[in-house]
Amino acid sequence: MVTPALASENQPTDAIPDGLIDAPLTAAKTASRVLGQATTATKDAALAAIADALIAHTARIIDANAEDLARGREAGHSSGLLDRLRLDDARVSALAAAVHDVIALPDPVGTVVRGSTLPNGVLLSEVRVPFGVVGAIYEARPNVTVDIAALALKSGNAAVLRGGSAARSSNEVLVAIIQEALASAGLPADAVQTIDEHGRAGATALMRARGFIDVLIPRGSAELIQTVVRESTVPVIETGAGVVHIVLDESADEQMAIDIVVNAKVQRPSVCNAVETVLVHADAARRLVPSVVEALRASGVLVRGDERARVIVGDLDVATDDDFATEHMALELSIGIVDDLDAALAHIRTFSTQHTESIITRDMANAERFLAEVDSAVVMVNASTRFSDGGEFGFGAEVGISTQKMHARGPMGLPELTSTKWIVRGAGQVRS
Amino acid sequence: MVTPALASENQPTDAIPDGLIDAPLTAAKTASRVLGQATTATKDAALAAIADALIAHTARIIDANAEDLARGREAGHSSGLLDRLRLDDARVSALAAAVHDVIALPDPVGTVVRGSTLPNGVLLSEVRVPFGVVGAIYEARPNVTVDIAALALKSGNAAVLRGGSAARSSNEVLVAIIQEALASAGLPADAVQTIDEHGRAGATALMRARGFIDVLIPRGSAELIQTVVRESTVPVIETGAGVVHIVLDESADEQMAIDIVVNAKVQRPSVCNAVETVLVHADAARRLVPSVVEALRASGVLVRGDERARVIVGDLDVATDDDFATEHMALELSIGIVDDLDAALAHIRTFSTQHTESIITRDMANAERFLAEVDSAVVMVNASTRFSDGGEFGFGAEVGISTQKMHARGPMGLPELTSTKWIVRGAGQVRS
Repeated sequence: MVTPALASENQPTDAIPDGLIDAPLTAAKTASRVLGQATTATKDAALAAIADALIAHTARIIDANAEDLARGREAGHSSGLLDRLRLDDARVSALAAAVHDVIALPDPVGTVVRGSTLPNGVLLSEVRVPFGVVGAIYEARPNVTVDIAALALKSGNAAVLRGGSAARSSNEVLVAIIQEALASAGLPADAVQTIDEHGRAGATALMRARGFIDVLIPRGSAELIQTVVRESTVPVIETGAGVVHIVLDESADEQMAIDIVVNAKVQRPSVCNAVETVLVHADAARRLVPSVVEALRASGVLVRGDERARVIVGDLDVATDDDFATEHMALELSIGIVDDLDAALAHIRTFSTQHTESIITRDMANAERFLAEVDSAVVMVNASTRFSDGGEFGFGAEVGISTQKMHARGPMGLPELTSTKWIVRGAGQVRS
Repeated sequence: MVTPALASENQPTDAIPDGLIDAPLTAAKTASRVLGQATTATKDAALAAIADALIAHTARIIDANAEDLARGREAGHSSGLLDRLRLDDARVSALAAAVHDVIALPDPVGTVVRGSTLPNGVLLSEVRVPFGVVGAIYEARPNVTVDIAALALKSGNAAVLRGGSAARSSNEVLVAIIQEALASAGLPADAVQTIDEHGRAGATALMRARGFIDVLIPRGSAELIQTVVRESTVPVIETGAGVVHIVLDESADEQMAIDIVVNAKVQRPSVCNAVETVLVHADAARRLVPSVVEALRASGVLVRGDERARVIVGDLDVATDDDFATEHMALELSIGIVDDLDAALAHIRTFSTQHTESIITRDMANAERFLAEVDSAVVMVNASTRFSDGGEFGFGAEVGISTQKMHARGPMGLPELTSTKWIVRGAGQVRS
């Protein structure tokens, strides 16, 4: 019998990963075969061990995090970045709680998606299976390390993680703790690995690891996501930036418009489902723009407007094309006036990142047209864009919000971290 | 109001396609918006017009095809390639018949995949929508031009096609006929386009057309598919080469083993679900190998064997690792002897393209282990690998067989040419 090699002749030569991360990739692949066959009970026990270990090792985690923070301060990182990076007692408890949330989720592996009996008696079923090895590339948020590891494990996947260099010490300790807990629960420690030590070259190798990484999920800035999408030869799930629009139609109820726009901008301005642009029908502009602007300003929002909006509210800042194209992630919002629904749809086609858009209207025909024609992951009528969220959708946890059209679109839950396979049971049938 | 530009600031700069195929990409994108809203009746009428036009223009098609054939003979193309390229009366009729088959398929667009009412009364539904613009890169088979165009149109997508240069004249005429028929049925002619005239540079531009091509499907040789997968920055569905295995377990019924192996190799050797390798349990090798080899040889199959198989049947040709790694697509097959199921699984892990594998056994535990542990799109027990096919699975037509794990795995039907979007209907709800 032949000796199994790592890659066969008929696979592309780049299936052999660049030597740099050979070891973790191969180990993760091997571990993924054990994870893929593990029962829900085994996986949940391992997750519980991880949650316990995070609490037990709180001091060790905070010490490592202090190194990252010190390095970050020296490097002159912004206070925002340092805050996202910081772990304290409460935040470590939150990490453990997030793992418990994942334990509570139903295990998608083994779900029969569809099936049939063929005319010749062959039994056919399509069953959910883990992807295998999930890769993740993200920025300096150590909570993502625990989140992705827990979601991957619950769905039967191994995980290879590449976090931002700013969180290297924190991630190293978090992954070590996860690995110890996995081993204590009888699962391979190699099921969760970090390649942070290899820096940018490690990230590049991860993006090219065809045959080893079954799906790669970037989490972070639009720039990071676009880099991963462009440079990867492994399949990527693009989770996305949100330049989110709300259209105030001619017939929009004024109070509803105010409530939804303010909620969509103010309730949590730093997330991707927060609104960035409000487009107002020209025939409702004088009725709606002043009160919407007043309510936004009362909540501390910097409101910009295009030329026509500034005719109505003279002291609006100027909204440029750059503003309309930017995800501000802050208490800033741009208002544009549009002649009709067609003009609103054209603006959205130009500037939307196809994440989430909503229309406020009483007109059924316009509502249905908007829902049908806007090509975004989530389209809404008379609801706040803040509902575009896995938790709100009832998925229990959110893997991210996909802005691509393949595999998963919109908020992703655990099933989106699985593939399927077809099981065919025969009794000797051949094809005639 | 701002002037809509082709791409906004926050999209990657490569969203603007290389100038070469700007015009067809932009036209296809515009046409896709009409297609996406077209009713099933309208799309079916357009498909019927296409089928009629193909028949009406048979002579024009055959004339153009004659140019390709003449060029191909001059270039010294193989008789196999020339045969795949050739169109005659019967084959043009078959093209039209294939379009009628697509008309008969249910339209996936608008299917509600799932839905719920949230506790706050918001109505949520996930609905199938077209991808938008489907790209295809394929080789010198003019039938693929008609197939992909028909499948794309039925699922509400526009299509941008890049066929092999050897079929350029045929494809040009086929696309012109399709465009005329589309226009006659009131749909935009631009919904189906060819970029064959731009040669390899056009293919490269297509692979980079982020924001214009929603999904790219390569069809053809393993080399072509791997090139597309490696070079594309648009999402790709990898349809695959099949190095397909059948395992004859210790308990395999001899007649069933013979019937299935012969069927899987001989019934149609040139397709991806034909078996390439038979792995035989060592303890059944003396019982099974001689009769399986005899039956294969009686059907004209060249049988190769590893060292241990050649101890049993002395005059087998030598099977090298290259043979075990090759999709022969011919009446050739390699036999390997394995010590146990573990060794069979290890061989499959090394050499399989993760398309389809089958085990012949009477042992339930081994059957279940094989189904659970083999990481292929389709796994079978006691059935011919030739069943791994969209038609056999009851999908009515086959878009291809996906060997990747994202979006679609295994035989793909029309629904796999769609994405979904989330529709949210509220009555003014905001998030608290």
